Amino acid sequence: MPASQSNTAQTRVGIVAPASRLDPALADKVSALAAERYPNGTVELVFHPQCFLSEGHFAGDDATRAAAFLEVANDPGFDALWFARGGYGSDRLVEDVLPRLEPAAREKSYLGYSDVAMVLAGLYALGFEKLAHGPMPSDIRREGGAAAVARSLAWLVAQDPDSLEPSVTPGAKTAAFNITILSHLLGTLLQPDLADHVLMLEETEEQMYRIDRSLFHITSNPAIRKAAGIRLGRCSDILPNDPDFVLQEEAVVTHWCTRSGIPYLGRADIGHDADNKVVPFGVLWPG
Amino acid sequence: MPASQSNTAQTRVGIVAPASRLDPALADKVSALAAERYPNGTVELVFHPQCFLSEGHFAGDDATRAAAFLEVANDPGFDALWFARGGYGSDRLVEDVLPRLEPAAREKSYLGYSDVAMVLAGLYALGFEKLAHGPMPSDIRREGGAAAVARSLAWLVAQDPDSLEPSVTPGAKTAAFNITILSHLLGTLLQPDLADHVLMLEETEEQMYRIDRSLFHITSNPAIRKAAGIRLGRCSDILPNDPDFVLQEEAVVTHWCTRSGIPYLGRADIGHDADNKVVPFGVLWPG
Repeated sequence: MPASQSNTAQTRVGIVAPASRLDPALADKVSALAAERYPNGTVELVFHPQCFLSEGHFAGDDATRAAAFLEVANDPGFDALWFARGGYGSDRLVEDVLPRLEPAAREKSYLGYSDVAMVLAGLYALGFEKLAHGPMPSDIRREGGAAAVARSLAWLVAQDPDSLEPSVTPGAKTAAFNITILSHLLGTLLQPDLADHVLMLEETEEQMYRIDRSLFHITSNPAIRKAAGIRLGRCSDILPNDPDFVLQEEAVVTHWCTRSGIPYLGRADIGHDADNKVVPFGVLWPG
Repeated sequence: MPASQSNTAQTRVGIVAPASRLDPALADKVSALAAERYPNGTVELVFHPQCFLSEGHFAGDDATRAAAFLEVANDPGFDALWFARGGYGSDRLVEDVLPRLEPAAREKSYLGYSDVAMVLAGLYALGFEKLAHGPMPSDIRREGGAAAVARSLAWLVAQDPDSLEPSVTPGAKTAAFNITILSHLLGTLLQPDLADHVLMLEETEEQMYRIDRSLFHITSNPAIRKAAGIRLGRCSDILPNDPDFVLQEEAVVTHWCTRSGIPYLGRADIGHDADNKVVPFGVLWPG
C-alpha cells in the first residue's frame, strides 16, 4: 500500500474493490473531482492498487482482495472505506475478512452498494454503526455521475444531510439493498436483522420474472417480514422477458408486500444511476 | 376438469402446470408415446386443461394454477401428479396450496424438476414420501426427448430402477435441485431439511458468475452444510460472462464445497436435457 501523500488531510478515505476491477481512468477523474471540491488537501483519497488488478472476473484473486480490504479497514489512519465499485465477487471474501477485523475497523465509515452490500451486511451483523448505501467511484462513468460522486464525498467528509435519501428520518432505522444481492444473503450468517427497518430495494439489468422470484424470496423470509416496510427504488435496464411479464415493477412489489403482510411505503430515491442517494444502515449516527 | 375416459387404467397420471404453459402439441406427443408404450389403456394420462392456459408469463393466473394443482393432488383417482413443465411461477402458488392438501394428496407420487421443485420442496417439508426429480412432458421437445419422457413414465408406472440416477442407493437419502431454485428457497419455510442427503444440483442458461454466487449462497446456509455431500449435474447452455469467468462449473462447485466443508462427491447424471435421470427426495419408497 502506498504511503499517504499527506497526513494533514482532515478526511482520509481508503478505496478498495472486493468485487470487480475499477478502470484507473475513473479513479483519476474521482481524484480530480475531490481535489477541486476540497482544495488544500483537506480530503485525501487513497485508491489501493488492488482496485486496478485483474484476475478473471475479479479485481485480483480472493486472497488479494481480502488483504486489501483488511489493510484499509484496520488502518486507524483512514476515516472511511469507500468501495470502488460493485460487479461481482464480494461473497468470495466476506466470510474470511469478518473475523480479522480489528477495533480501528469499527470506528470508520463505509459506503457502497450493489454487490459490496454483501460486505456491508456482514459488518452490520457485527454491529458496525457507520455503514451506508450510496454511490461509488465507478459511478463517475455515468451521465451526471460527477454529482453522484460529489454526493458521496459530501457524505463521507461531512455527513451532509443533503446526500440522504429524502425519506430517511433521524431516529428511524433504514437499510438499502440490491434485490438480487439481498436474496443471496437470506438464510446465511450474513443476513442482517432488518426488524423495524424501512427496507429500500433497487434492481438493474434483470428480467422481470427474476425480480418477481427474488421478491418472493425476500418477502417469504420470516425475519424480513418484521421490517417496518419496503420502499421500491428504481429498477433500471430491465431485460426482455419472454413471454412479456405484463406486470411492472411496482405491481410486482405490491403483490409480494400484500402476500407477506409487509407494508409497502412507496418509492425510494435509489438505484443504479446518478441520482442514487445515501441510505444509512440502522439509524443515522452522530456526525 | 374432464372426466376420465377410462377408470380401468392401472395407473392414472394427472398433469398440471404450476409455472409456465405447455404447448398442446407436446401434450399430444406425450399421450401418443404413452399409448404406444402402455397399450390397452393400462396407463392413462390426463392433462388438466389448465396446462394450456396463458396469462402473461404463466399457464393461467395464480388462483387458476393453484386450483388445478389441488384438484389433481387431492383426487384419490390419480396415482401420480406429473408436472407439465417448469419455466417460472410455482413460487406464486406454493404457499397457498400447501395448507389445502387433503389425505389423498399424500398417497400419490409427484415428478418434476426445475421451477416446480419449489412445490416439491414444500411437499417434502410436509413429509410427503413419494416425490422425485425427473423429466416432464415438456422434455419431449428435446432431441432424444422421447427417451426422457419414457423414463419418467417407467418411473411413474412401475418405479423402474433403470430410471434412477446411477448413484442413487436404496436406504440413502437424496434430493435434486436446480441451483437457482434451491437458492431462492433458502431462509423460507419451504426450505427442505437436507441433512444427511446427497444433494444433486444442476443448472441451465445462467452466467457462470451467477452460478458461483448461487453456490456461495447454498453452501453458506448452515442447514445445507449438514448435507452428506454435493454431486454436480450438468450445467448446460452457460451464458457468456463479461469478463470471462475463467473457472468452469466443477472448479466453482469444488471451491464452495471446500470452503463450506461439504464433501464433493463427483458428477450426477441430471440436467436440463434428455439424459436427465430420476432422483427421489429422501429414501426410495416401497414400490
